[in-house]
Amino acid sequence: MLLLGKPVIKKLSNEISKYIEAHQLTWKYVAIFLLSDDKPSEVYVGKKAKKAEKIGIYADIKLWKLWDVEEVIDEIQQCNVDTNCIGIMVQLPLAEHLKEHQMRILDTIVPEKDVDWLGTRLFGLAGFGKIDFVPATPKATLEILKYYWMDDYRWKTITIVGTSNLIWKPLAVELMKRGATVITCNSKTDKQFFKDTLAASDFIMSATGRKHLINKDVLDTNLEDKILVDIGWWIDEDGAYGDIDWKYYEDKVKAVTPVPWGVGPVTVTCLFHNIMAIGEQKNHISG
Amino acid sequence: MLLLGKPVIKKLSNEISKYIEAHQLTWKYVAIFLLSDDKPSEVYVGKKAKKAEKIGIYADIKLWKLWDVEEVIDEIQQCNVDTNCIGIMVQLPLAEHLKEHQMRILDTIVPEKDVDWLGTRLFGLAGFGKIDFVPATPKATLEILKYYWMDDYRWKTITIVGTSNLIWKPLAVELMKRGATVITCNSKTDKQFFKDTLAASDFIMSATGRKHLINKDVLDTNLEDKILVDIGWWIDEDGAYGDIDWKYYEDKVKAVTPVPWGVGPVTVTCLFHNIMAIGEQKNHISG
Repeated sequence: MLLLGKPVIKKLSNEISKYIEAHQLTWKYVAIFLLSDDKPSEVYVGKKAKKAEKIGIYADIKLWKLWDVEEVIDEIQQCNVDTNCIGIMVQLPLAEHLKEHQMRILDTIVPEKDVDWLGTRLFGLAGFGKIDFVPATPKATLEILKYYWMDDYRWKTITIVGTSNLIWKPLAVELMKRGATVITCNSKTDKQFFKDTLAASDFIMSATGRKHLINKDVLDTNLEDKILVDIGWWIDEDGAYGDIDWKYYEDKVKAVTPVPWGVGPVTVTCLFHNIMAIGEQKNHISG
Repeated sequence: MLLLGKPVIKKLSNEISKYIEAHQLTWKYVAIFLLSDDKPSEVYVGKKAKKAEKIGIYADIKLWKLWDVEEVIDEIQQCNVDTNCIGIMVQLPLAEHLKEHQMRILDTIVPEKDVDWLGTRLFGLAGFGKIDFVPATPKATLEILKYYWMDDYRWKTITIVGTSNLIWKPLAVELMKRGATVITCNSKTDKQFFKDTLAASDFIMSATGRKHLINKDVLDTNLEDKILVDIGWWIDEDGAYGDIDWKYYEDKVKAVTPVPWGVGPVTVTCLFHNIMAIGEQKNHISG
């Protein structure tokens, strides 16, 4: 079975639109900083702007790859205090001359507008359990499985493949809270261990960005009850692809998310859904 | 087999003392804020002061339960800028009148002196993987098992029992990094699920502070290969006790840490060991 993102997006978008209306946020804006000429970044930012428009807010794209660090920080600070700005996103990677200042730039964003979870402060608040906040990508993974009633994780062995701390850590924590047993693998994992782990898992969630890392050479047993979730969305000249060779698995496993049309587009929606999540917990964030 | 903390403490203390000497930190100081008249807190602070003295630095105990929030914050800020102060610890819980300001107080500590990992910023830095930092209690757990050569976690099922975000989250993350499959349980976990999970686990690490939560009524099968780690150190009029009825398990399991003399005292040592961990990564913290 293919788990498509589209109906999940529809459901979440409805929730956001209602929130935006109820809180009179229509035509307020999110600021999206695009500070490089990285191609995939341009695509992402385009998707975010389109999504914003659809749910009824404005996206102010700040395409400033030539600005220096002080100018960028100054502009973020203006967004911080502007009450019409309800979210600040900085697209990564930054341009070369800004890279060494990345942490300073991201930590300039006030936590109550840090919908993308880029600053250390919001991360800390969520880590301490002061607020309930799951960043967009792990959230998209949970939402897609919830939509298709595949979110009973108790006693399930779940392997997460990936090295991005922003994905595997919060995802692992959320799954463990729900009773799963979680194992994580990365590029340093022994190859045989990796194969055995995949074979023994009920769920496999892969977030590396390496094309078809999960293919029939590493995983071809015990397929029928498995659920495969591809978080490894990437794009190049040949189009979008993922970590999982989903066409091979489509008729063999219980469920698989394809790329494109799986987790990727849900992620963008979850980013905006997190404007809600932050808005509803504002007291705990700025306190 | 009983896993005693003492030899682990000796090894770690030697490492700290060498570091203190090599970096000419002798007779610099750590500031310990004791802002309540909670009895166990007094005991903890006493242990910390004694430990400081042993490794060759001074503990400045600030017993100010009557001070107001602004006075406390002012004093923390002075410690922040004082180059003779190499660590700031605030003993929790705070006095009633300070409780509502807890987050503000803890976030006043600069991350490069936040050895106790109480501020959101250091938590965020570690969560993002910018620095390698494990707070004292999870660190003590890892160090004690490492000392006794029981730290091969690959393919091992580990159950962590506990609700404190400061313990189970970093512990789970560190164990997963090392190849373990981790499952977490808390007070909301279904009782039968809890029993089944304990029976199926290779390691059980419990950090609830509930006296003998792990006893023969919930765990009495598959004992011979199990390793039990008691992180639930607590103290009352009858003495110190833990989460695990270790006397029952002592001759039945592969290994168990007792309370007292197990993980608890190692934790205090790890707190000071983290002065090293922070010192060695200073560039990444204040950057």
